[in-house]
Amino acid sequence: MKCTVCRGPAVIDVRRHNSAFCPEHFVKHCEGQVHKAIHEHRMIERGDRVLVAVSGGKDSLALWDLLAGLDIHADGLYLGLGIGDYSGESAHHARAYAQAHGRKLHEVDLASDLGFTVPVAAEVTHRSPCGSCGLSKRHLFNQFAIDHGYDVVATGHNLDDEAAVLLGNVLRWDVGYLGRQHPVLPATDGFARKVKPLVRMGEREMAAYCVVRGIDYQVEECPMAAGNRHLGYKEALNAIEERSPGTKAAFVFGFLERGHARFDDDVASERAALAPCQSCGAPTPGDVCAFCKLRKRVARADAVDDRRSG
Amino acid sequence: MKCTVCRGPAVIDVRRHNSAFCPEHFVKHCEGQVHKAIHEHRMIERGDRVLVAVSGGKDSLALWDLLAGLDIHADGLYLGLGIGDYSGESAHHARAYAQAHGRKLHEVDLASDLGFTVPVAAEVTHRSPCGSCGLSKRHLFNQFAIDHGYDVVATGHNLDDEAAVLLGNVLRWDVGYLGRQHPVLPATDGFARKVKPLVRMGEREMAAYCVVRGIDYQVEECPMAAGNRHLGYKEALNAIEERSPGTKAAFVFGFLERGHARFDDDVASERAALAPCQSCGAPTPGDVCAFCKLRKRVARADAVDDRRSG
Repeated sequence: MKCTVCRGPAVIDVRRHNSAFCPEHFVKHCEGQVHKAIHEHRMIERGDRVLVAVSGGKDSLALWDLLAGLDIHADGLYLGLGIGDYSGESAHHARAYAQAHGRKLHEVDLASDLGFTVPVAAEVTHRSPCGSCGLSKRHLFNQFAIDHGYDVVATGHNLDDEAAVLLGNVLRWDVGYLGRQHPVLPATDGFARKVKPLVRMGEREMAAYCVVRGIDYQVEECPMAAGNRHLGYKEALNAIEERSPGTKAAFVFGFLERGHARFDDDVASERAALAPCQSCGAPTPGDVCAFCKLRKRVARADAVDDRRSG
Repeated sequence: MKCTVCRGPAVIDVRRHNSAFCPEHFVKHCEGQVHKAIHEHRMIERGDRVLVAVSGGKDSLALWDLLAGLDIHADGLYLGLGIGDYSGESAHHARAYAQAHGRKLHEVDLASDLGFTVPVAAEVTHRSPCGSCGLSKRHLFNQFAIDHGYDVVATGHNLDDEAAVLLGNVLRWDVGYLGRQHPVLPATDGFARKVKPLVRMGEREMAAYCVVRGIDYQVEECPMAAGNRHLGYKEALNAIEERSPGTKAAFVFGFLERGHARFDDDVASERAALAPCQSCGAPTPGDVCAFCKLRKRVARADAVDDRRSG
């Protein structure tokens, strides 16, 4: 296998691009794809203050690294979710990368700063942990950006993630989610801009990027996500991609070109109808936002436990 | 496993309905679902002349049988596709059912009536045989209905078929196909109404229906379809359905409720722009319809072969 660019020995092939790359040209290829995504969708403008949502996994560390390669300065925010050893190791990788590259990493810890963890939230709500986790992340990354003057929150969602989420959304024809699924969600009152610069990059390419660049990352999947629907959608898409390389990219980009606008009619009016949460001030369709409701439920459960053991 | 209706021994469970049935109540269940589909989408009105596209497989024979159970008289049309033993056996099952139940079965033979077969068309066009086959079927079933005064062509597409086609259409975001994907396509100039009364029935249920009703059918998959994309989409959906029963039904019916209307804007104008094919008179967007073009290509290839061997 030879590099498509320089004919030197290749270390990775990218079937949907019908290409293979040596380490040097693979990094260039990744930078080119991320540059293209950022400019095509006007994700980040000169002078924007950018906050990367850093989990310690391959995608968010690769994103942070790729942004630097494109001369986009970004700070990181690591969220301690309290998922045992998994969270401990993830934090370690996030901190190690920040220290080695002289980057600023903020940290928020669910347990010490907010009084609960993802496993506790899952237990209290009797729901999938992924629901409470996603809700907490969306809320806290946005809140941190707003509170600290960041214009943009960049997340490491890659092409595989986007394709799997899109598949779930069309399988349910969840028209609200379809209207909101886009690599850029513009800033509005109380919301920082949300961008996904890795939307053109496959999961496997992001792992390879970290290896080539010598970035250590959390290789384990989150133990609480095992067996969830999202992973089932990824497996189904992988089987189809295996037969027809390029299917995922055509799915996601075809949606953006020819599908998305058919679903975004309600989104603007939905956003316009939001008002500040009575408890924390974040925009919400109700009186109290879903995150504050979650915190209250956990606090109530704690109080019951205290009375029982008291 | 007990019948949900009478508590007698059940022979099949239907997970997405959280039900199981004895033979008698399973037939009633199928009739009820087909009745619901027909009425919900106004597929067939009293007095309509109905033509069933009969392949000799489980779906089309079950459809023919179920329509009779609902007092809907329908004639059949069997199309000889010239796919070796597979076509021979399929014809046998279609004729045997018609004879045993005193039904009228028309027959059109691609080879003797049109001068080619599906394998020959595939060879000449250098394309997937499924393309030429589908094109020929759509053209000939419609043409036969128009020529013989049938109002409706009913096909045996079941829920699994519709879900797999829908998945292919969204993976490509083929907005034209999405606009045309519906259990009823109304009659317009040169087109009989097309209906899919089995849209609420799973593939497995149709096989069980035939077993329960003692209908012999072609159990082999078409040998030319092996490995095609459609079957890959079915496998992917089966894997998801296995984890989450009801996914396929939610996908197809969710599309009809909340998706389809977002794609049908272009379809009416497309249909209005059709004009009669200069060769056969069928409606077409060009001068000559795709079926006549296919016939011409085959005839040209034959002429070349004759000159070579002559």
